[in-house]
Amino acid sequence: MTPNKLTFEQLAAKVPHAPFHQWLGCELTALTEEAVEISVPWRDEFLTSTEPRYAHGGILAALIDLTADYAVAAKAGRGAPTVDMRVDYLRPARPGVLRTRGHVVKLGKTLAVAEATVHDESGAAVATGRAVFFMGGG
Amino acid sequence: MTPNKLTFEQLAAKVPHAPFHQWLGCELTALTEEAVEISVPWRDEFLTSTEPRYAHGGILAALIDLTADYAVAAKAGRGAPTVDMRVDYLRPARPGVLRTRGHVVKLGKTLAVAEATVHDESGAAVATGRAVFFMGGG
Amino acid sequence: MTPNKLTFEQLAAKVPHAPFHQWLGCELTALTEEAVEISVPWRDEFLTSTEPRYAHGGILAALIDLTADYAVAAKAGRGAPTVDMRVDYLRPARPGVLRTRGHVVKLGKTLAVAEATVHDESGAAVATGRAVFFMGGG
Amino acid sequence: MTPNKLTFEQLAAKVPHAPFHQWLGCELTALTEEAVEISVPWRDEFLTSTEPRYAHGGILAALIDLTADYAVAAKAGRGAPTVDMRVDYLRPARPGVLRTRGHVVKLGKTLAVAEATVHDESGAAVATGRAVFFMGGG
Repeated sequence: MTPNKLTFEQLAAKVPHAPFHQWLGCELTALTEEAVEISVPWRDEFLTSTEPRYAHGGILAALIDLTADYAVAAKAGRGAPTVDMRVDYLRPARPGVLRTRGHVVKLGKTLAVAEATVHDESGAAVATGRAVFFMGGG
Repeated sequence: MTPNKLTFEQLAAKVPHAPFHQWLGCELTALTEEAVEISVPWRDEFLTSTEPRYAHGGILAALIDLTADYAVAAKAGRGAPTVDMRVDYLRPARPGVLRTRGHVVKLGKTLAVAEATVHDESGAAVATGRAVFFMGGG
Repeated sequence: MTPNKLTFEQLAAKVPHAPFHQWLGCELTALTEEAVEISVPWRDEFLTSTEPRYAHGGILAALIDLTADYAVAAKAGRGAPTVDMRVDYLRPARPGVLRTRGHVVKLGKTLAVAEATVHDESGAAVATGRAVFFMGGG
Repeated sequence: MTPNKLTFEQLAAKVPHAPFHQWLGCELTALTEEAVEISVPWRDEFLTSTEPRYAHGGILAALIDLTADYAVAAKAGRGAPTVDMRVDYLRPARPGVLRTRGHVVKLGKTLAVAEATVHDESGAAVATGRAVFFMGGG
């Protein structure tokens, strides 16, 4: 596997560049050669319904997308535009801190594939997915 | 094709039930037997970068998910949990009103498939995708 | 939409280049500016079960992939490697001629997206999906 | 994780039931609580092009689908219809024995998700994907 090009501090500093990430409140919590981990504090605006209280699938999809992107950025030194992504919803996500973990499946010169999973505060995997990124050719 | 079970007013009334939809500001703008259309006013929190100013892929994924869900709800009389979804990103989405259009591909007793496309204010298609919904068996 | 770069005869001549297409027996049956159509005679090796007699999902996936590829080839003048693909299975495919129809969703310099649907002999849509192709850069 | 409901011998005996699996020549080579492994001898009908000699993406998609299905069957005691599937192509698959490995991501009463990867004879991962299966309600 390609070694990381960014340190924890360098990658962590990139996360709040996106205004949407600021709104989500997401924060890098771990970076190893194998994986990135991100933590997202709860907001009631994440809810898809108030009775029962579950997070909206669109929020989980956004977390899959951004976590996969950070997994690629750690290895490539920069983020890249998403070509496509797919999410499997595994169980309802209850209110509480959401934690994500992502890793690179393939890092090519033109395309990269990364996988990410979202866990709710109980530790249960609530959504998992993959995205393809365009690395800009070469 | 199954006839709609909800009127425009009935479907429109469901949209703001989700706190996430309220935050997005999404509003039903059209309902025919073929399609639903939803409009989303711009928020700067949608941005993935401030230079250039593009919407985050996670926002577009959320709009695909919710539009597909409303397409199913129009036919089935109620929303349903998303089993999985996939999004193809077609071009960067610039700031401005986002408009979505969705339709049902298959409406089964246990599973439904719907497709949705997001357009930016210029009318260009910026993302398109499909989702599968669990209709609860029977 | 980009005009076709290949005539019906030129595209039809490409189909049997692949040994797998020869085994499938697939044949181009129509080419318009909007779509390609391919016909595949039945083989009992397509079966996933003999009681009831249904086509294997892997065969339907292969038909989605190749039909989407021909839709791109018609516009681009050549086939391209598949980056990824997704298939929604709509209903069991019974023995008989399988007919596919595909069209381009986006034709970019580096990436293309195309959609295809497989119909069984009764005309029912049995599977539908999309694939992304790598066009070789810019 | 749910324990296996089938032994190696029971699962191996199911593989050749499908005429398409017989044509592919696929054979169960390993079953643990974590994964199933399947081996597929080369056939020249798998080729998508004769110069260079690469396997067709449709063959790889079929192997993802059937390997994911066997991963589910090992846990559930029986195969199940595929709802949808997605494949990421990682690199061209050269002629030689294809080996697949699959595992269950989620085993629910109504839906299951499984993941599979195809390796070529060099051991390189050539395609990886996921499928959702309908377990029949309950």
